Amino acid sequence: MKQAKVRLYVEHPLGEGQTVPLDRDQAHYLFGVMRMAVGDPVLLFNGRDGEWRAEVAEAGKRGGVLTCAAQTKPLQMPPDLWLLFAPIKKARTDFIVEKAAEMGAAKIMPVQTAFTNSERIRQDRLQAHAVEAAEQCGGTFVPEVCDLQKLDRLLADWPEGRQLMFCDEAEVGAAKTLGAAGAGPWAILIGPEGGFSEEERARLQALPFAHVVSLGPRILRADTAAVAAMTVWQQALGDWG
Amino acid sequence: MKQAKVRLYVEHPLGEGQTVPLDRDQAHYLFGVMRMAVGDPVLLFNGRDGEWRAEVAEAGKRGGVLTCAAQTKPLQMPPDLWLLFAPIKKARTDFIVEKAAEMGAAKIMPVQTAFTNSERIRQDRLQAHAVEAAEQCGGTFVPEVCDLQKLDRLLADWPEGRQLMFCDEAEVGAAKTLGAAGAGPWAILIGPEGGFSEEERARLQALPFAHVVSLGPRILRADTAAVAAMTVWQQALGDWG
Repeated sequence: MKQAKVRLYVEHPLGEGQTVPLDRDQAHYLFGVMRMAVGDPVLLFNGRDGEWRAEVAEAGKRGGVLTCAAQTKPLQMPPDLWLLFAPIKKARTDFIVEKAAEMGAAKIMPVQTAFTNSERIRQDRLQAHAVEAAEQCGGTFVPEVCDLQKLDRLLADWPEGRQLMFCDEAEVGAAKTLGAAGAGPWAILIGPEGGFSEEERARLQALPFAHVVSLGPRILRADTAAVAAMTVWQQALGDWG
Repeated sequence: MKQAKVRLYVEHPLGEGQTVPLDRDQAHYLFGVMRMAVGDPVLLFNGRDGEWRAEVAEAGKRGGVLTCAAQTKPLQMPPDLWLLFAPIKKARTDFIVEKAAEMGAAKIMPVQTAFTNSERIRQDRLQAHAVEAAEQCGGTFVPEVCDLQKLDRLLADWPEGRQLMFCDEAEVGAAKTLGAAGAGPWAILIGPEGGFSEEERARLQALPFAHVVSLGPRILRADTAAVAAMTVWQQALGDWG
């Protein structure tokens, strides 16, 4: 059986015999860039129905049709983990979103803190990065990227039962205590490059659902801290067991 | 006391009253870009003598002199950890070097594997990235970046007593067994984006000093894997305790 060279996210139901129409961009990529033809295999996922092996049934310049043959992977949901982070410079924000998708975050939430520089993000562009990372990393799930929201408002409306791991360079907390806090819904909060304000820090420390965790004796950039924190969490409470 | 806005790596001894000459690039950065003047404070480190607060004693267009006042941090050596990785695309290779310095690797070793695309690296450029990352992350040590070497030759001359953690997406190893392997000299090997060859994998698995560790059920890019693997190691055996 021919090996599929392309793994594609589509917004369409997938199932045995199901046909999947391609839009112009997808057709251009498959038939123009990748030079695929009728009969060639493609792997598809839509975030709900797992991964499917499909074949090109019709190939055109402006569109095309794929037909699903067989499921190659079941849907694998990541743990119920949110990643909250303060957006930084463009390239590093893109990077955090890519890494969050690879590392298995369920939801990616850019937050505005006292020392966050950006007032705006391009949600659509960041969502596209998450899709691309899922295509790359073999995942069958794409985390949702939310719009920028204020951290204090998010904390004020915090959902009951969701715990929060917060990484503060000024603090030395033990990652070992995470396991004792137990599984269930969690969120990780990565501070901005300038750190949290005194007011924010005091508020975070007083939250009954917050757990401070140290990421070692060196100061990590926000993008490094995001990957390190997700590693610590996935090992202690996630699906890396 | 005025807060130092700049943290600079210098190749010069540091100590009380020690004067440190600046080269043209450093003078341009401090006096041209950062607009510093005589009397302004700078933090200095050289990888050996810890971090020192110095003041500008002479400022010129082509050079200048700093005078060390007091030590602000002792030298903090990272654990004896090597990071071996197969170079990938330029931006991601730069990224791995930056992250290795932040995460506390002692030595950074680009290696050529069967599926490594690059035949060459710019060692000087990568070393400069490691210096910059050390300046940023508040470290007092700068990891050495080695020249590209062949993985099989490195393994053939492997130093006695150094253990090797190797992360293979095809394997499911338990990070928990790392602790039992014990502290001492270690190395982490991150495979290339195309994975290891069958021959390499068989050889690695047969090495008596090698430990396979899983980084979860999703496929990680090499740069993500480097940060995640160093997190796992630092938590189990390094200085994050």
